[in-house]
Amino acid sequence: MYEGIVQDLIDELGQLPGVGPKSAQRIAFHLLQADPVDVRRLADVLIQVKQRVKFCSTCFNVSEDDQCRICRDPRRDGSVICVVEEYKDVVAIERTREFRGRYHVLGGAISPIDGVGPEQLRVRELLTRLADGEITEVILATDPNLEGEATATYLTRNLKPLGLRITRLASGLPVGGDLEYADEVTLGRAFAGRRAAE
Amino acid sequence: MYEGIVQDLIDELGQLPGVGPKSAQRIAFHLLQADPVDVRRLADVLIQVKQRVKFCSTCFNVSEDDQCRICRDPRRDGSVICVVEEYKDVVAIERTREFRGRYHVLGGAISPIDGVGPEQLRVRELLTRLADGEITEVILATDPNLEGEATATYLTRNLKPLGLRITRLASGLPVGGDLEYADEVTLGRAFAGRRAAE
Repeated sequence: MYEGIVQDLIDELGQLPGVGPKSAQRIAFHLLQADPVDVRRLADVLIQVKQRVKFCSTCFNVSEDDQCRICRDPRRDGSVICVVEEYKDVVAIERTREFRGRYHVLGGAISPIDGVGPEQLRVRELLTRLADGEITEVILATDPNLEGEATATYLTRNLKPLGLRITRLASGLPVGGDLEYADEVTLGRAFAGRRAAE
Repeated sequence: MYEGIVQDLIDELGQLPGVGPKSAQRIAFHLLQADPVDVRRLADVLIQVKQRVKFCSTCFNVSEDDQCRICRDPRRDGSVICVVEEYKDVVAIERTREFRGRYHVLGGAISPIDGVGPEQLRVRELLTRLADGEITEVILATDPNLEGEATATYLTRNLKPLGLRITRLASGLPVGGDLEYADEVTLGRAFAGRRAAE
């Protein structure tokens, strides 16, 4: 129905999360009429984001350097590590300004249905970090849903023998949701009220 | 809050129509984890769409060649021209399979508030096309809203002296809406029931 390249663009846009066929069409028509300079800038950012974005060699946070900004920052408390599922959770927690330690990004949560077990996550790398003795507390900040709970339980069981303080975020987070969508006050309070893991 | 290039990507995506800050963030995170080949393909389509898409020199429809597919097609009836506001309206009408003539894309509608008058639209080009005498009917298929009605009224007044048949789409289209969102049956019936312009 559309000229070939226009249809290609609609198809590509339709692959993005939350973009249905009507939205894809609407965005495509917008781009057809947009200034070529603006469209080129979007294309360049897409190319650069894949070229420049790496993962921090220490915590696996998103980074443009070998180590992320938080791992490089000497003012951050190296004795407390907050374990999260994804990069977006780091951003959500940073926004609360409640936490001054460092992070460990697992890269997901345990989910047998999706074929994700502990070996698909950066659990071994977490154990390696904990082995040097500098870290005294691990905060498990996985999502308050089934997979997140399973991951936290698994980690608690495996970290207990190390004799560290292991804590979980306080309840207050809406159950069944995603951590990243919690508002800043709720997430900040959940941080302040964290409890010892059973 | 985000690493520089990630924030750039979120900002660029947030410029797209219908993409709010949360959606932009969601799409950006998806792209961060996507296969670089897929992201590169999206970037390439964006670049190519601006390089390859031109406008038909006859009807101003979107085209990859000097003339669009419809103007090149000898099976289309050259004696009837359907005047629409935008390329997306051509696509919506083509989908009904009700119309076998050709098009003229104005590039918008008269809207004093937005500073769009007849001189900003391809009205002069329409008059030039009508001058050769091959065209016997002009169907005014502007959007059934204030700007579309004003444009149709303006064109009716200016085309009347040429002695052509001038028609409007039948009522049946929801008033106040956009032509492109009408369902195919409604739009097809509106075509079949078009009436002489007063």
